[in-house]
Amino acid sequence: MPRDRQQLLIDSLRRFLRRGAQPHLRRLIEKARAEDVGLALAELPVREARSILATLLDTPELAADVVSGYGASHEELFEGIAAEDLIPIFRHIASDDAADILGSLPEEQRNALLESFEDEEQEGIEELLQFAEDSAGGIMSTDIFSVDQELTARETIVQLRESPKAELVFYVYCINEEGTLVGVLSLRQLLLVAPSTQVKEIMESDVLSVPVDLDQEDVAQIVARYDLLAVPVVDEFNKLVGIVTVDDVIDVVRDEAGEDMMLMAGVGDEEAATASTAQAVRTRLPWLLASVAGGMGAALLIGMYEAELSKVAALAAFIPIVMGLGGNVGVQASTIAVRGIAMGQLDPSKFLSALAYELRVVLVIAVVCAGIVALACLGLGDSLLGGGATSPEPLLLAGAVGTSLLAVMTFGAMLGTAVPLISHRVGIDPAVATGPVLTTSIDLIGVLMYFVISVTWLGL
Amino acid sequence: MPRDRQQLLIDSLRRFLRRGAQPHLRRLIEKARAEDVGLALAELPVREARSILATLLDTPELAADVVSGYGASHEELFEGIAAEDLIPIFRHIASDDAADILGSLPEEQRNALLESFEDEEQEGIEELLQFAEDSAGGIMSTDIFSVDQELTARETIVQLRESPKAELVFYVYCINEEGTLVGVLSLRQLLLVAPSTQVKEIMESDVLSVPVDLDQEDVAQIVARYDLLAVPVVDEFNKLVGIVTVDDVIDVVRDEAGEDMMLMAGVGDEEAATASTAQAVRTRLPWLLASVAGGMGAALLIGMYEAELSKVAALAAFIPIVMGLGGNVGVQASTIAVRGIAMGQLDPSKFLSALAYELRVVLVIAVVCAGIVALACLGLGDSLLGGGATSPEPLLLAGAVGTSLLAVMTFGAMLGTAVPLISHRVGIDPAVATGPVLTTSIDLIGVLMYFVISVTWLGL
Repeated sequence: MPRDRQQLLIDSLRRFLRRGAQPHLRRLIEKARAEDVGLALAELPVREARSILATLLDTPELAADVVSGYGASHEELFEGIAAEDLIPIFRHIASDDAADILGSLPEEQRNALLESFEDEEQEGIEELLQFAEDSAGGIMSTDIFSVDQELTARETIVQLRESPKAELVFYVYCINEEGTLVGVLSLRQLLLVAPSTQVKEIMESDVLSVPVDLDQEDVAQIVARYDLLAVPVVDEFNKLVGIVTVDDVIDVVRDEAGEDMMLMAGVGDEEAATASTAQAVRTRLPWLLASVAGGMGAALLIGMYEAELSKVAALAAFIPIVMGLGGNVGVQASTIAVRGIAMGQLDPSKFLSALAYELRVVLVIAVVCAGIVALACLGLGDSLLGGGATSPEPLLLAGAVGTSLLAVMTFGAMLGTAVPLISHRVGIDPAVATGPVLTTSIDLIGVLMYFVISVTWLGL
Repeated sequence: MPRDRQQLLIDSLRRFLRRGAQPHLRRLIEKARAEDVGLALAELPVREARSILATLLDTPELAADVVSGYGASHEELFEGIAAEDLIPIFRHIASDDAADILGSLPEEQRNALLESFEDEEQEGIEELLQFAEDSAGGIMSTDIFSVDQELTARETIVQLRESPKAELVFYVYCINEEGTLVGVLSLRQLLLVAPSTQVKEIMESDVLSVPVDLDQEDVAQIVARYDLLAVPVVDEFNKLVGIVTVDDVIDVVRDEAGEDMMLMAGVGDEEAATASTAQAVRTRLPWLLASVAGGMGAALLIGMYEAELSKVAALAAFIPIVMGLGGNVGVQASTIAVRGIAMGQLDPSKFLSALAYELRVVLVIAVVCAGIVALACLGLGDSLLGGGATSPEPLLLAGAVGTSLLAVMTFGAMLGTAVPLISHRVGIDPAVATGPVLTTSIDLIGVLMYFVISVTWLGL
């Protein structure tokens, strides 16, 4: 929905609420899409969002849509609303969303709600709550429509009519008497066969499924690769326990790629645009403190070369270009590696070939850059070097800077490729391991390389 | 599919091909998933991939799966294969994929193929080819299943049986006599009503659709926001012209977030892991040349302060920390802005509030970082400053460095927030406008700020 229409919805909601125009409020919410209302409420002060929810308590189905689409803290939204009012709402929320919302509540509030559910419902949700949030179990829904493979098409359609909550019934999963997943068929196939056909005659028995503890990124890769609308989730005995639908996968894909980007920039893995100032400082400051430490290290290091700097002040002039190029090449290499790993195109088994590829690329790039800079040193000559008595021979300076750039850029590219692959190998998120820490390391070692090489060339 | 199983598939394909074991080859391909075979072929030398395709020509349906899943250049894959052999394959490929493949061929080859299609097919594909690649029209399929709203449920099911190619029939789109989209219903609803019910009685008439020229990112946002499996595409008269299915949207979501990350790192917007050395150099070098220009600018700038540097060589020591912190804060701010824009949470109408938010955050962060660095300057004192006759008062140096950091970090954060928002406003991709160019600008202006401030504090 375009931003201005969303703003209109927010304004209307507030106006009706202020006037106490409850029938208008309810009609507006009924007419709008639930997702839009949920997101609109998240932009209101929580007190107003709560008042609007309160007017919907006697239509739990409507309230459920709004609650699942609500984009801010459910803990605050539910404050002061009784458990017996919330239960009917939760009954209309898909089990995976319900578990996510309950999982985000403080323990006390969650337990109070869980106890008010009927035993069976409670069990289902508690089961979902125990799975790791970023596993297939954590994003799956347990509202599955499955039938015994011995049933006929007609019987299956009858069962379908009787299961109102089953999420997104497009695939019919077929199980045997042990509950083991044995096949799948589409609703369309069900429509096309004679009503007396047995399900097992028409089902596709080569069915793709994922284990309940599979990482959500891997689930998303499978769904995207095979263009699935949903993938069944099975336990260790191949018993059907849930499905992951494509709408949840889109969220995973959307979050993961964004997360890598945020982590590499050192801004945490949450949606930063909605963080408070204090939260933002808490996530961003630690990465900058790494830069502070690296920068102080560089200062100490340069301090050790003070005598040489006093003789040839022009040495300082090339610190920025050495740092800039070394850092940027490192960011390029590490981004390609992090992205390649995330897309499943790169893994530690290709470590050496990835390094060799990057080496070929960076050698070309570094020779061009170092060449341009060296020529510029020669050309700019005296204007750069002050022309004083202590100025070095331009040719020597060009050689020193060019050689330094070659060394630092090659080092930056190699480190940028190696760090994500090694951290992936040892089980650390590659995106966390790179970012500010990587560029700071390249800066520090780059400055050291530059001084060692220059001092040698210039014979200081 | 895990990497080692994929490798096994590749090895088996090559072995059977080498031995000329055609029946084995065909059986292996029939048993494997088409997507896996397509991706496996893309890893073979194109000559071998072509030979494998040639063995599938008499089963165009199987060949079609492999061709649509093929991940490398179709131009090379099709070399030497006659148009009359390719046409039957294309008949089994979804129209959106067929148009994408044809669009990637050189004009001559494309026209030769198009002419061999029957008139109606040719028209449909040519229509798809004319839409911008990144618009709803560019990613939609024209294989739609739609029915006249006057039909009954029974008649609809009969029609369904007769349309074998309609992609992903889960939603039935309802049109009036002018072809205007008037409603939608799910297959499931069709199953649940009496066969004589008219479609228009049960359809949902508030149907979400997208215009054919809408940007694919906006299409993806709508599909993700409303958890749709497919969204109908309409022309300017609200006539139904196609559908965008969720599997294409996943690809868009997946590509877009990754693209932003790649663009910001200055490595182009293509999948870099598969680029040749020459391609990689071509996309990465220009961004580094921006760094070269910025770095030479910084060198000239520092050259102007050579006299001051000769007096106080310790001035050079803090160049890395000023550049490092300024750059990293800039990357943090710009990443948050680019991501916020991509997620639809941030737009130019919030320009001032975004700047104000970032200012609050960076002031806290900058005060902490500048404070730590200033204290470190005081503490390290002589060891940092060489203790020579020309050393500045540590307190003055601490003040100079601290003030510089405050100024440069604030500037970096403001520029990092403003540049993506302004470029979005004027229609430039925010991710392109930030990245290496932004950090280079911050470096250059940061170094200038540092020298101006330090020289003033130290009275040089």
